[in-house]
Amino acid sequence: MSRAVIGVDLGGTNMRTALLNHDGDVLERTREKTPVAEGYRQVIEKLSECIERQRCRARDRGMEVAAIGVGAPGVIHAAQGIVLTSPNFPDWKNVPLKQLLEQKLHIPVYVENDANAAALGEQWRGAGKGIDSMILLTLGTGVGGGIILEGRIWRGADGTAGEVGHMTILPEGRTCGCGNRGCLEMYASARGIVMSYHDRKAVLGLPGPDASVTAESVFREAQAGGDVALSVMGEMGRFLGIGIANLINIFNPEMIVIGGGVKEAWSLFIDAAVREIKARAFAYPAERTRIVPSVLGDDAGMIGAGSVALGS
Amino acid sequence: MSRAVIGVDLGGTNMRTALLNHDGDVLERTREKTPVAEGYRQVIEKLSECIERQRCRARDRGMEVAAIGVGAPGVIHAAQGIVLTSPNFPDWKNVPLKQLLEQKLHIPVYVENDANAAALGEQWRGAGKGIDSMILLTLGTGVGGGIILEGRIWRGADGTAGEVGHMTILPEGRTCGCGNRGCLEMYASARGIVMSYHDRKAVLGLPGPDASVTAESVFREAQAGGDVALSVMGEMGRFLGIGIANLINIFNPEMIVIGGGVKEAWSLFIDAAVREIKARAFAYPAERTRIVPSVLGDDAGMIGAGSVALGS
Repeated sequence: MSRAVIGVDLGGTNMRTALLNHDGDVLERTREKTPVAEGYRQVIEKLSECIERQRCRARDRGMEVAAIGVGAPGVIHAAQGIVLTSPNFPDWKNVPLKQLLEQKLHIPVYVENDANAAALGEQWRGAGKGIDSMILLTLGTGVGGGIILEGRIWRGADGTAGEVGHMTILPEGRTCGCGNRGCLEMYASARGIVMSYHDRKAVLGLPGPDASVTAESVFREAQAGGDVALSVMGEMGRFLGIGIANLINIFNPEMIVIGGGVKEAWSLFIDAAVREIKARAFAYPAERTRIVPSVLGDDAGMIGAGSVALGS
Repeated sequence: MSRAVIGVDLGGTNMRTALLNHDGDVLERTREKTPVAEGYRQVIEKLSECIERQRCRARDRGMEVAAIGVGAPGVIHAAQGIVLTSPNFPDWKNVPLKQLLEQKLHIPVYVENDANAAALGEQWRGAGKGIDSMILLTLGTGVGGGIILEGRIWRGADGTAGEVGHMTILPEGRTCGCGNRGCLEMYASARGIVMSYHDRKAVLGLPGPDASVTAESVFREAQAGGDVALSVMGEMGRFLGIGIANLINIFNPEMIVIGGGVKEAWSLFIDAAVREIKARAFAYPAERTRIVPSVLGDDAGMIGAGSVALGS
């Protein structure tokens, strides 16, 4: 029987699993709603069912699942597989996710922070193949980050490293959910884009907040040539460029990968971002650093979690 | 004969060498002006003389010098020992410092960036003993940085990493020598403090720029209770705190060490810095990170360069 692993992306909205072969090809998928409100035991129960379904499919293919990798949001103690705390799962405090899943599944389980898992996925099978030093920025509802140095995730002393979305970009800027002001996340995320759009309209004396505005509607308006939306996306690019310039000066990385839903608006922000990087970062490392869109999209987390299971 | 190394701090103003035993104790020192204007060959010639003097002293002590470590400013290719470019030495372009010194001295020479050397020195014999992840900020004329992860310097893809002084703290702030605007260096260095002092006086309508103002004179005025100087040092602490909060969120390090001449004014800025860090950084890593003054002062670079020579 050939060897397979299962990679899990455990999100606050959906839990997704992928059956992966040794090369990281996705053979089978599952996708279910995450029953966050029912508490962590129910979440783990439902996840176990998804995983068992994948194991049956593996057997049908003549494969054996050797291990499970789970990418989970929040502060993770990776070595012990414990979710210390998680913004998306309010009741998860010191949940021994590895241990609970192993008791149910009788198979080795490895747990990794979701942004780190996505970075590992891009490095293994996506934009960062063969790259040793790379930073992934996921521009979604918020801005997540995963830092790969010498081919490995930099987790920091407690596993909380990589919060590049919470770099201060504007000291007196918008108040962020993390308690800080002016975080990159407040300007370069989908939520930030919607806030900038409302702010810009207010400055211009145009009609006020409209609940139907989403990041996608701003992208569409900008693509259609709308001035307000175009200026919002230009500003978003400039703030993103400030953040990336900081990362270039600090890390001198080979590559910065930009993922998340906002990546779909690439052409609306990348020129402004690159101009800002050229104006701000040291020329030598700035020329070296390739700034590229993610390749794997939503699959990055599952594939990266699978790579953890394979590598461990 | 017991084994010794020589650690060199090659600065734009002074070249300093230390004869070190195996434990990193400084046994002998030399200090000479660096003849920058006479060109790199003359600088290397004079440095070789200082090193030969130290070797004689070592022999007098019954010791043999096994290797030389040099901390040099600028962009260094550490593996090859080449100074690619250096802001303090305008004519140094791709100078093969290791090779030129080895030809003269017939002894192994290792070259490291000066801020990295200082970080290694603090880790070996100073504030960071036994610490695996640590960032050194040297608040001098500018703001330098050295990043130690898993006990080793993070150099980046080209050896330019660690430029934490050139993080943007205020996007529309002062124009920095590096070309960026609002770098941490423009607010937390000795030069930045003098600029802030002049700016503050101008805002208050007080008499204009006075060439006698130095960072030290601002420190003295603040220590004597002067309002303008106290507010300048408080502002400096707040900007430093923003930069440190960013580093905590990105790296989750065990320790941040603050060195350089401005460190002498510790009590005038540290409270404001810590308040800003608490307000901005994630609580979990912020509580973990110890923020401490450097222990070795000006010796950190020589001692760290010596550790490179010993370890290599």
